[in-house]
Amino acid sequence: MKSRTIEFQPVGQKGQCREDESLLDCARRLGIGISSVCGGWGACYTCRVKVITGALSEPTPGELEALSAQELGEGWRLACQAKPAGDCQIIIPAESMSTSQRIYVEGLEVSVPPEPAIKAYHLQLTAPSLSDQQADADRLLKTLNEQYQLHCRKIDISVLRSLSPQIRDWNWECQTSVRDGEVIALSPWPSRQLGLAVDLGTTTMAGYLVDLSSGQTLATEGVMNPQISYGEDIISRINRVTKSPREGIRLQKCVVDKLNELTASLCSKADVSVDSIVEAVVVGNTAMHHLLLGLPVKQLALTPFTAATGLALDVKACELGINMTPGAYVHFPPIMTGFVGSDHAAMLLATNMHQAEGLTVFLDIGTNTEISLVNGDEITTTSCASGPAFEGGHIKHGMRAAIGAIERLRMTRDDINYQTIDESPPVGICGSGALDAMAQLHLAGIIDNSGRFLSDHPRIRTTNNQVEFLLVNREEREGQSDIVVTQKDVRELQLAKAAIRTGINLLLEANGFTEEQLGQIVIAGSFGSYIDVSSAVGVGLLPPLPLNCFRQVGNAAGTGAKLALVSLSKRKEARDIVARTHYVELASNPDFKKMFLVTGHVGKYWLRHNERKMIENG
Amino acid sequence: MKSRTIEFQPVGQKGQCREDESLLDCARRLGIGISSVCGGWGACYTCRVKVITGALSEPTPGELEALSAQELGEGWRLACQAKPAGDCQIIIPAESMSTSQRIYVEGLEVSVPPEPAIKAYHLQLTAPSLSDQQADADRLLKTLNEQYQLHCRKIDISVLRSLSPQIRDWNWECQTSVRDGEVIALSPWPSRQLGLAVDLGTTTMAGYLVDLSSGQTLATEGVMNPQISYGEDIISRINRVTKSPREGIRLQKCVVDKLNELTASLCSKADVSVDSIVEAVVVGNTAMHHLLLGLPVKQLALTPFTAATGLALDVKACELGINMTPGAYVHFPPIMTGFVGSDHAAMLLATNMHQAEGLTVFLDIGTNTEISLVNGDEITTTSCASGPAFEGGHIKHGMRAAIGAIERLRMTRDDINYQTIDESPPVGICGSGALDAMAQLHLAGIIDNSGRFLSDHPRIRTTNNQVEFLLVNREEREGQSDIVVTQKDVRELQLAKAAIRTGINLLLEANGFTEEQLGQIVIAGSFGSYIDVSSAVGVGLLPPLPLNCFRQVGNAAGTGAKLALVSLSKRKEARDIVARTHYVELASNPDFKKMFLVTGHVGKYWLRHNERKMIENG
Repeated sequence: MKSRTIEFQPVGQKGQCREDESLLDCARRLGIGISSVCGGWGACYTCRVKVITGALSEPTPGELEALSAQELGEGWRLACQAKPAGDCQIIIPAESMSTSQRIYVEGLEVSVPPEPAIKAYHLQLTAPSLSDQQADADRLLKTLNEQYQLHCRKIDISVLRSLSPQIRDWNWECQTSVRDGEVIALSPWPSRQLGLAVDLGTTTMAGYLVDLSSGQTLATEGVMNPQISYGEDIISRINRVTKSPREGIRLQKCVVDKLNELTASLCSKADVSVDSIVEAVVVGNTAMHHLLLGLPVKQLALTPFTAATGLALDVKACELGINMTPGAYVHFPPIMTGFVGSDHAAMLLATNMHQAEGLTVFLDIGTNTEISLVNGDEITTTSCASGPAFEGGHIKHGMRAAIGAIERLRMTRDDINYQTIDESPPVGICGSGALDAMAQLHLAGIIDNSGRFLSDHPRIRTTNNQVEFLLVNREEREGQSDIVVTQKDVRELQLAKAAIRTGINLLLEANGFTEEQLGQIVIAGSFGSYIDVSSAVGVGLLPPLPLNCFRQVGNAAGTGAKLALVSLSKRKEARDIVARTHYVELASNPDFKKMFLVTGHVGKYWLRHNERKMIENG
Repeated sequence: MKSRTIEFQPVGQKGQCREDESLLDCARRLGIGISSVCGGWGACYTCRVKVITGALSEPTPGELEALSAQELGEGWRLACQAKPAGDCQIIIPAESMSTSQRIYVEGLEVSVPPEPAIKAYHLQLTAPSLSDQQADADRLLKTLNEQYQLHCRKIDISVLRSLSPQIRDWNWECQTSVRDGEVIALSPWPSRQLGLAVDLGTTTMAGYLVDLSSGQTLATEGVMNPQISYGEDIISRINRVTKSPREGIRLQKCVVDKLNELTASLCSKADVSVDSIVEAVVVGNTAMHHLLLGLPVKQLALTPFTAATGLALDVKACELGINMTPGAYVHFPPIMTGFVGSDHAAMLLATNMHQAEGLTVFLDIGTNTEISLVNGDEITTTSCASGPAFEGGHIKHGMRAAIGAIERLRMTRDDINYQTIDESPPVGICGSGALDAMAQLHLAGIIDNSGRFLSDHPRIRTTNNQVEFLLVNREEREGQSDIVVTQKDVRELQLAKAAIRTGINLLLEANGFTEEQLGQIVIAGSFGSYIDVSSAVGVGLLPPLPLNCFRQVGNAAGTGAKLALVSLSKRKEARDIVARTHYVELASNPDFKKMFLVTGHVGKYWLRHNERKMIENG
């Protein structure tokens, strides 16, 4: 099989690609991130690339369906389908790159008294002699226990492996890090004790380097989850791993490698050594949690959707291949169910949900949306498959919140004003932009309550039998293709918002409440932090509370991870939250489909008595 | 650098050897075991090989010293020194092979009520449903704890990694193996729970496969410790690892690989799966213990000779790369000091030392000899560097107890009667044979009390200025070289036996006893089990008690490991023994050299009052 040279632009990387290898696989090998929502099956549109010079294989049926004749004529192809037939130069458009998304790491600043899992003790040992030949480790434990009235009985094996030469180098003086009766690290006296908190999301991961004795955050950074190139959504990744256990190892390794990069970068920012990190806390949704830990995921995607484990776990960092001091543990707070992970528990922890005033809904919107209803000490949680529309998936010109994405949009008569990320030229629409677009189109009467385009607007046109609304035309984009919102896009957004709104309403109903009784809605996560709440209320995604009843809390999961890192009490609180939570499965609720029909309508509405009655009567 | 083809006989293996590579290194690469007591520095005689055809490099100074002109003329070379100068055919004589030693695995049969660290529980779980989505692991723990009133809170990560698919395959019924509050294995119900006990010696390793519920030994096997080809004695191996940490990893890996082979073979004999092994106990001397665990060893060889750790350890088998059920632990009983390992503690455990009648000495003779004096509940232990003479090292025609070794020897007038291992043609003398030879030569008046050869015997001759006694001549060996005992050999044996006897006597003295008060002497280990006790007493290696006061207990360390495997009480007893033991350092005892001079004499003797006085006066 012949090998061809491929040059990827704008990244400027070259590499060899066999004629039976897709451009996507080649790019992955080279470490170039190309989006791939469907996981490389030619079933989506996100891995679009443009061939500039050179020949590719004939378009596949998937490409013929996804791309118009014009696009194909212009050289547009799907990277997961196209294979080289000669040396090629390929352009990856910004909307297909998976490496430049805006990552939201900032969350609430909540300070707690530091009470970390690791305590540090200063020791000065007596050197051994021919009349005192006690083993090095035994000597250390004895001195430690006597001097500080402890009952340590265990020393991590990696500490044992370095103890003898180190303690001699340090002239028998050292700092001993103790965790739950185990010596997990030795260092010269005095040394800082640092911790790492990570919010591991499907798309992005946020890392926080924290000083454990002060609780202070020393450095913060967000990076893309590299598993994206194996499928942007959870189900694609689960399917991959289910098909081949080796894929599981590959997915695990790629996220661990990225975590190590992230850690190294955080440490470099704070000018500290990776070895100073003596504890980590990682939160994430159940699938990300399982993939990182190497736990089976097949059953997550099959009814009744059970997690392999929900328990809080303490796993040695070295067991996972995560770089910190070798004896350190990674703490994984408990996960709630197969669809509600420890990130949601961390969000509840960070938002002090038990101090919420009145009946409160906590929302984390994503491909899967987690919703908790908190009433005093009672927590009821559900989750719903809201789909990737709010992350730009299944939307003709949708994209994640990367550079050039339209994130805000207003219509004044026929004028469209939009704002893009980094104020770059527009390349597509991200979730908050799509939400604004739907709200504005509805306000302007261009789509009706059922979501149907009305045809009398000058920007409405029909392409390939599909009605679409022109947002940005070729001229504005200097010859690049138009950016449009199609009828199908609106339907996708309706499905997404109906799923979330149905979740909220059924959760209220299951607890005997109505929307009118809601006191507050707390919205976490990247999408939730950037949306225009009035648009969300306008299209009926969120119940119509006064705007001051909404709290957008940023990356609350990351904040929760930091809290669990710094404070054992907060760690316990997270366990208590999970233990107290009652999970409601929406898929098994017979009202789901009925209510879905109502909440699918575009526009602000209350579920009024007669509508509830309609639902009840079927 | 040119590469040459080397054919090794009698093994019949061929391989390539660069002109700058020694025959020993080449053989190692090919997996052919050639002895190398000095670790490949040309400082001993054990890697002798004979070139049949082809040319080798010029003899090195080391070879010129070790080999006579006649031997060199016959083609004898040291494999660690000689390099090929052309394609060669090489013969490895039996005494230089390191792969066929008789390995003593049998020990005392001591039965204890089984009380293993692992308990097995039968579980039938309720399958999850949409109305009961509890995670799989949480469900298992809850059922286990409720049904059996346990407080398990932990599940091994490898168990978590297989639990979800397995429990579904098994229709939610399983056997759960629990160790100290942790689920370490799942298996179909019902499954056997097996254990592995290993005595890891410097030269050999003995393995025992045990049914944990009955305590029955299912299979037994002994193999060579493959680290031998990196140096036969402990110090050579420590030096290697100290010089290069990568050597440490190599030595660890080679012993782990061999352990896995041993385990596979034991399981095959008993027709069980390696996965059935849920616990292991490994005992060994301190250096072997440290090398297996990857602990630092440099400080073992430097005064004051401290161990990295003496603590009893429980290490996950997978952390060490040892094959059993992945969540299983390997238990390492505590070691006593830098020179007295857990094998000695295991020996004391196996011999029920606390039930000993009267004052008892426990001996484990090897390159390093461990000696304990037990008086009721009081244990005092020492160790002494007795050197490799009793293992055939530093003896002109010495060899380990492999096929063809002279292991018993009697002189009747000028007639020599000997017995070889496997009744094969004689190829050299092993420890017990050398001991017999010294005793018989002394009895016959051929060597005097000081160990000097008297010259008037027909078998006495002088070769290369060295007086030697002819044991087996060329004719008897069908043209192979004579087997002799040299004056230097006798000196080596004197040094070895003096070290041991000095140890016994100083230990008695340190506790205020004399030899006359000794009630019993217990001798463990391979050499100790094969020696003729009357020879040992005859040359003054052992004190002259009546022969029925000696107990040869075989591989008591292996028996001790089995006891610690089967019974938690015995495991605790081992810890108690180590905690109670008082260690006496001989090297720091000013009387050591003085007493050494006396005990160096050949012949049965009591340390009489006047001798002790002489020692005291210097």
